[in-house]
Amino acid sequence: MTSIDLNSDLGESFGRWVLGDDAAMVPLISSANIACGFHAGDPTTLRRTCEQAAAAGVVVGAQVSYRDLAGFGRRFIDMDPIELTDDIVYQIGALQAIALVAGTSVRYVKPHGALYNAAVHHRVQATAIVDAVRSVDPTFPVLGLPGSELLAAAGASGLRAVPEAFADRGYSPDGALLPRNQPGAVLHEPNEVATRVLRMVTDGQVLAIDGTAVEVSAESVCVHGDSPGAVQMAVAIRDALAVAGVEIRSFR
Amino acid sequence: MTSIDLNSDLGESFGRWVLGDDAAMVPLISSANIACGFHAGDPTTLRRTCEQAAAAGVVVGAQVSYRDLAGFGRRFIDMDPIELTDDIVYQIGALQAIALVAGTSVRYVKPHGALYNAAVHHRVQATAIVDAVRSVDPTFPVLGLPGSELLAAAGASGLRAVPEAFADRGYSPDGALLPRNQPGAVLHEPNEVATRVLRMVTDGQVLAIDGTAVEVSAESVCVHGDSPGAVQMAVAIRDALAVAGVEIRSFR
Amino acid sequence: MTSIDLNSDLGESFGRWVLGDDAAMVPLISSANIACGFHAGDPTTLRRTCEQAAAAGVVVGAQVSYRDLAGFGRRFIDMDPIELTDDIVYQIGALQAIALVAGTSVRYVKPHGALYNAAVHHRVQATAIVDAVRSVDPTFPVLGLPGSELLAAAGASGLRAVPEAFADRGYSPDGALLPRNQPGAVLHEPNEVATRVLRMVTDGQVLAIDGTAVEVSAESVCVHGDSPGAVQMAVAIRDALAVAGVEIRSFR
Amino acid sequence: MTSIDLNSDLGESFGRWVLGDDAAMVPLISSANIACGFHAGDPTTLRRTCEQAAAAGVVVGAQVSYRDLAGFGRRFIDMDPIELTDDIVYQIGALQAIALVAGTSVRYVKPHGALYNAAVHHRVQATAIVDAVRSVDPTFPVLGLPGSELLAAAGASGLRAVPEAFADRGYSPDGALLPRNQPGAVLHEPNEVATRVLRMVTDGQVLAIDGTAVEVSAESVCVHGDSPGAVQMAVAIRDALAVAGVEIRSFR
Repeated sequence: MTSIDLNSDLGESFGRWVLGDDAAMVPLISSANIACGFHAGDPTTLRRTCEQAAAAGVVVGAQVSYRDLAGFGRRFIDMDPIELTDDIVYQIGALQAIALVAGTSVRYVKPHGALYNAAVHHRVQATAIVDAVRSVDPTFPVLGLPGSELLAAAGASGLRAVPEAFADRGYSPDGALLPRNQPGAVLHEPNEVATRVLRMVTDGQVLAIDGTAVEVSAESVCVHGDSPGAVQMAVAIRDALAVAGVEIRSFR
Repeated sequence: MTSIDLNSDLGESFGRWVLGDDAAMVPLISSANIACGFHAGDPTTLRRTCEQAAAAGVVVGAQVSYRDLAGFGRRFIDMDPIELTDDIVYQIGALQAIALVAGTSVRYVKPHGALYNAAVHHRVQATAIVDAVRSVDPTFPVLGLPGSELLAAAGASGLRAVPEAFADRGYSPDGALLPRNQPGAVLHEPNEVATRVLRMVTDGQVLAIDGTAVEVSAESVCVHGDSPGAVQMAVAIRDALAVAGVEIRSFR
Repeated sequence: MTSIDLNSDLGESFGRWVLGDDAAMVPLISSANIACGFHAGDPTTLRRTCEQAAAAGVVVGAQVSYRDLAGFGRRFIDMDPIELTDDIVYQIGALQAIALVAGTSVRYVKPHGALYNAAVHHRVQATAIVDAVRSVDPTFPVLGLPGSELLAAAGASGLRAVPEAFADRGYSPDGALLPRNQPGAVLHEPNEVATRVLRMVTDGQVLAIDGTAVEVSAESVCVHGDSPGAVQMAVAIRDALAVAGVEIRSFR
Repeated sequence: MTSIDLNSDLGESFGRWVLGDDAAMVPLISSANIACGFHAGDPTTLRRTCEQAAAAGVVVGAQVSYRDLAGFGRRFIDMDPIELTDDIVYQIGALQAIALVAGTSVRYVKPHGALYNAAVHHRVQATAIVDAVRSVDPTFPVLGLPGSELLAAAGASGLRAVPEAFADRGYSPDGALLPRNQPGAVLHEPNEVATRVLRMVTDGQVLAIDGTAVEVSAESVCVHGDSPGAVQMAVAIRDALAVAGVEIRSFR
């Protein structure tokens, strides 16, 4: 493998509240998962981040979420699947118009936060997401966790399923992400993270929390955009990949 | 003139709260101004109303608003025009995706409530609306009050400006609408309203509150969808127009 | 038993959207569970309903909810319990000030919708509710389902636990409410409902969906305020209780 | 004058979004204007900031706002005054319960952002604010701009009116604040700001943008809590006041 996609969650400011440094992150990645207003992202923030992506030639994806500003989309909500599908259609469309005005376009979908996690095991909600994506544009790939219900449902319905790995998250031996409240769940040291990403890309493996090597078959690696040190981490990853001759390139 | 457009504000339920009878109103009109979620309209409501419009062959427009669920978009908000433009782009896009999924498409834009009223005189906000529409799709007509800054800005920027009259609103002698809190501002008697609409269409005139005849040069007549008796009023208007041989037809 | 409390969910309009007929319902009940703005209830609606309760001598309770206007509080949200406690404290306080201004006061708490249902089995959320109530006012009783974690936690922490029955809901043989999507889950015939309530009050029993008699030990009976026919149903219940010599009186 | 109150806007984080450094600011001031959830401040943030104020012996005030999370309460909203009054009652009550749980209490009210600015000239909204405060607790002072309609209405209705000056804002020769978009409207240099505050307190004067000395008769000085360098600025002000023998003490 000589190339890999780097994706990051962006557009997550809201009005007066600033989160992350989109201007610095955008040039370091190949795919920008841009919020759609339901967990974060007022329209002006979204337009600016889309403009930055357009200027940098970075592919834009819709980072769809439960309607939950107060919880930043990190709370599971037991929604009716039809309402969930409609909420996602709404969000994708909103970002499509914003992206158009910014000189680019939405080209894939990735669920955010608790919806992402729900879609790993919750078949009904995973299917609701896929129904939304397919009805808006069946050429949109869906990003998700390898082995998730989401990617299974996407594939079964004819959507392209794109598995991703996480640069700065700890893994359990079975390949799942460690819950955020466990020790080792979130990594902070740029060089350690860069080394992990390089191994993911070149060997298809990541070291789990117990030291065992876990297979990760990822077409994209997620780099978080809102943590302290996010930019330094992305730079370290880019440098490590460059030294190893791995190109950073969108999966589209 | 042998045809006129009838437009109505629809899709204004929100979650548990039902407003208006979209299923009954849609077949009676030619243009559905469908809410976009900022003053009303959860995504599932919007999809259903779009599906009803698609089934009836009724043209869909985006009824854009200030972000104000608690005030139903009826409060003037002194917004930064760039943020207003972005908010409107977001809303149009959201409804475009919903309409697509419902088998139809957005084909014009009409501002709602306090934004509609602001756009009569407030040049900066009127221009912000026009900027949004033009950047999303310069073929979209804009509905507004005859003589408004909105229609002036639309025309100046190359958008089609569509003046509308109001079936059930009282007029002052200068052609403005009476404020809602004044006597005679809202008419309720179906036959009286139907007679007024017929005169608007055939003579281009409406009787003002003082009895003087005012010129109204309208390509569309707005019939309110959420008032008690809205359906009966629309039926009366249709009947009166049919008797007079006036076709009800979209301005698009 | 010669008296029973009748409670109803009120204050559930929001801005332009009207739900229920609070003015008609208030005089028919003894306890008004008034929304607190998180699932329904703009402040002006809340004040008006509190004023109606004050005028009728009806006791006011805080009907607290998840923050979920779009879902009307009917979607389970997997919240952090500390945030849930704080959300509930906030809601109770908001209604306390509104009630004060309206000439009355909040005197008990009842969770709404999905939070009510979660608190039947979800010990962590049940405890979070109880923590909120106790920290605001340990003299506040809590209304809930007999046998629920909520009432257990309330009792264990020294709060008064008030079990309630439902006038117009179907029961399963084990005393649980039938889920709303099952046949027989919601009853509509006023006389049937009134007969059931009378039996609950005089015999402490209700007929389950399979015809077996289930023990219900309730200090209050919930009459829904937002269903079609809610007023007629409450009138029928009052009449049946009056004929049987049962007084309608607050549990406080 | 040997003492002055220092007040600051706090509790303005919301969910995932952090704004300001409340833990650092609270010990530097004597009055904390804590948000109430309408422009900022989720309940958990509010409780934590109230706890910090309680621990530091700092007086808590309710910083009430238009309902406008997306605009951070900085957009004028042309609200019905009765609805504005009810919205403010709701907010004060919510913070009262939060403060109670945190071991303190709300003791004054200050409007935020666009509502603060509206209340300078807009008599109807100023009166609506005063009506809310008086109906909740007529012993609550109201903070506002000297010469404002707000303070006039407060005084006329029997509330204590507390005029305040702004540590880091530029003044026009007539004593008004320079609009934020003008040069010199916001000052950033800690020593300059500290010198200005000292002059306000000892001489009752501030230098306007044109260099003329303007009378400011203030019982409190507002130090912004969310600007970069807010903490350093507050420290510089405290140091300058300490050297001059001026005590920092609540106006209550």
